[in-house]
Amino acid sequence: MKTKKHIVIIGGGTGTFTLLKGLHSFPIKISVIVSTADSGGSTGVLRNELGVMPPGDLRQCLLGLSQADPLLQHLFGYRFDRGFLEGHTIGNIILAGLERITGSSEAAVREASRLLKVHGSVVPVTKKPTTLIAILENGRRIVGEHFIDEPRHDGTLRIRSLVLTPSGSANPDALRLIKTADAIVFGPGDLFTSTLPNIIVDGMAQAIRSSRAKKILVTNIMTKYGQTHGFTASDFLTTLEQYLTTKIGEKIIDTVIVNTKTPPQSVLVKYKKEHALPVVADKHELARRGAAVITGDFLSRDPIKKQMGDELKRSMLRHDSVKTARAIVSCLKRYP
Amino acid sequence: MKTKKHIVIIGGGTGTFTLLKGLHSFPIKISVIVSTADSGGSTGVLRNELGVMPPGDLRQCLLGLSQADPLLQHLFGYRFDRGFLEGHTIGNIILAGLERITGSSEAAVREASRLLKVHGSVVPVTKKPTTLIAILENGRRIVGEHFIDEPRHDGTLRIRSLVLTPSGSANPDALRLIKTADAIVFGPGDLFTSTLPNIIVDGMAQAIRSSRAKKILVTNIMTKYGQTHGFTASDFLTTLEQYLTTKIGEKIIDTVIVNTKTPPQSVLVKYKKEHALPVVADKHELARRGAAVITGDFLSRDPIKKQMGDELKRSMLRHDSVKTARAIVSCLKRYP
Repeated sequence: MKTKKHIVIIGGGTGTFTLLKGLHSFPIKISVIVSTADSGGSTGVLRNELGVMPPGDLRQCLLGLSQADPLLQHLFGYRFDRGFLEGHTIGNIILAGLERITGSSEAAVREASRLLKVHGSVVPVTKKPTTLIAILENGRRIVGEHFIDEPRHDGTLRIRSLVLTPSGSANPDALRLIKTADAIVFGPGDLFTSTLPNIIVDGMAQAIRSSRAKKILVTNIMTKYGQTHGFTASDFLTTLEQYLTTKIGEKIIDTVIVNTKTPPQSVLVKYKKEHALPVVADKHELARRGAAVITGDFLSRDPIKKQMGDELKRSMLRHDSVKTARAIVSCLKRYP
Repeated sequence: MKTKKHIVIIGGGTGTFTLLKGLHSFPIKISVIVSTADSGGSTGVLRNELGVMPPGDLRQCLLGLSQADPLLQHLFGYRFDRGFLEGHTIGNIILAGLERITGSSEAAVREASRLLKVHGSVVPVTKKPTTLIAILENGRRIVGEHFIDEPRHDGTLRIRSLVLTPSGSANPDALRLIKTADAIVFGPGDLFTSTLPNIIVDGMAQAIRSSRAKKILVTNIMTKYGQTHGFTASDFLTTLEQYLTTKIGEKIIDTVIVNTKTPPQSVLVKYKKEHALPVVADKHELARRGAAVITGDFLSRDPIKKQMGDELKRSMLRHDSVKTARAIVSCLKRYP
């Protein structure tokens, strides 16, 4: 019997959720390594007040891999729209409660996985919550994931570097997953607040470099003010490799998956209000960098299910779960 | 094949939870009819802010009948002890969420029952939440279950009458349960805030009177300031029958179960601070009233599990689940 291929997704957040839902139907083993720096909204309140692991990204990844009946999934993802619970999801509250009951975030994730019939593993990248700090090109420090995610500063400024406090060493479970991976997928998701907060954890970049897995980057559909403002697809690649490599010019990423379908004008108008533009697929530059490039229409046409994730106005555009998953799985075949 | 005997418990709250846990192991069908007037603490906030059925009593009854694995039960009963969620139980939040998602309290209870592997039925006595009003012997109106439960007025004053607003007609499911019951059990629990709020619902007293089921009253271990201050066991009987009958002197209750074991002095001291004394088992008076009396040691020695219910200081004393259940089941044999 052939062993199943093992795909490790690095991220958290809505982009990861979408991808996991697509990967579901393929006969592969799926693991997710999740950032522990999330600090916004419901998640921020719960981690601050209860001292628990930020639950938001964990919740989305667990839901992405859940085979539980639809109502239970709906319940876990349900976000209250009024009263003192407004903005909080039941899944976040359950994860916080499980951690308070069991005394550990690992046990909480394990028990939530059991409850949600999760097929796959969800692993926080560190054993303790971390705080993300961005140092901007003008030297200013932005402390806290949510202040990077929803900037109150001039979002056209590039992020010069990203650090964690405490710097935190990688969860051994995460390193073990990377070791046995056949493919490691970065994105789709916010580069500086979902993907990179995993990679800057001590031991993670090295483990990824040493891994023989195929490394796949899924670039975002839209740029994001305060993070990837003005980024082309190759800027995503350059930035990611900056954090992955130790030597200038070292190549890590094997394949870049880039959407080339232009979103509907009506949606673009809304994004433009948040200074977000479609990510340009600069294929020549990507090819020059030695990465295989998969382009195509990866745009989802499904209406966004409000209750399933941390919806922000700018998340109206999503990757198509199945098309993106299919492109990723095709990479496994390319490199047998 | 003999059909299982059907016991209907009328109540809600911690007393009902305790009894349900004890009835569990007997081969009987169990149903609970639950008050919808609960308005204190977590429950009050959720019903006010989200417009849902008060979840507290429903949660306790569902847990009392749950066969789900212990961690899931623990999770459902878990009460946060800090932060903005302080005092709220996850089960209350889940019930509120299920009602918001499904749009009906019936569907919410049904889905929660499925999740918790509930063996038996839990039925709210009305289809919409109600507000409880007590009219005291001095004519003062106390509006809201929690102001009766935790009185700010002189709690030595007797409650002259109890009404609901809206008066609310009985949930047809509740009436159906009463019709098929072999036994109907009143208490243990707060007489004026758990038991009677079920009975004063339009149609309930009549259904109980017409039912051929054996009617069993379990009196409380301690009196309660503001409700049953100074009550003996026969006062419980008199008051209950007052609300059940239409004719003076009509007898409804077949059996009264009364604890006669004196609680430990150290506990009594604490209760005394809340003006609560042991309920005196005035057996002669009960016998004179034509009710069979079961007396004995019904005091629980188990440490109170804080997370399982709405713990108030005065709930330190509980009925022993198994002994009380056994006494109730023995009544079914007495009247075959």
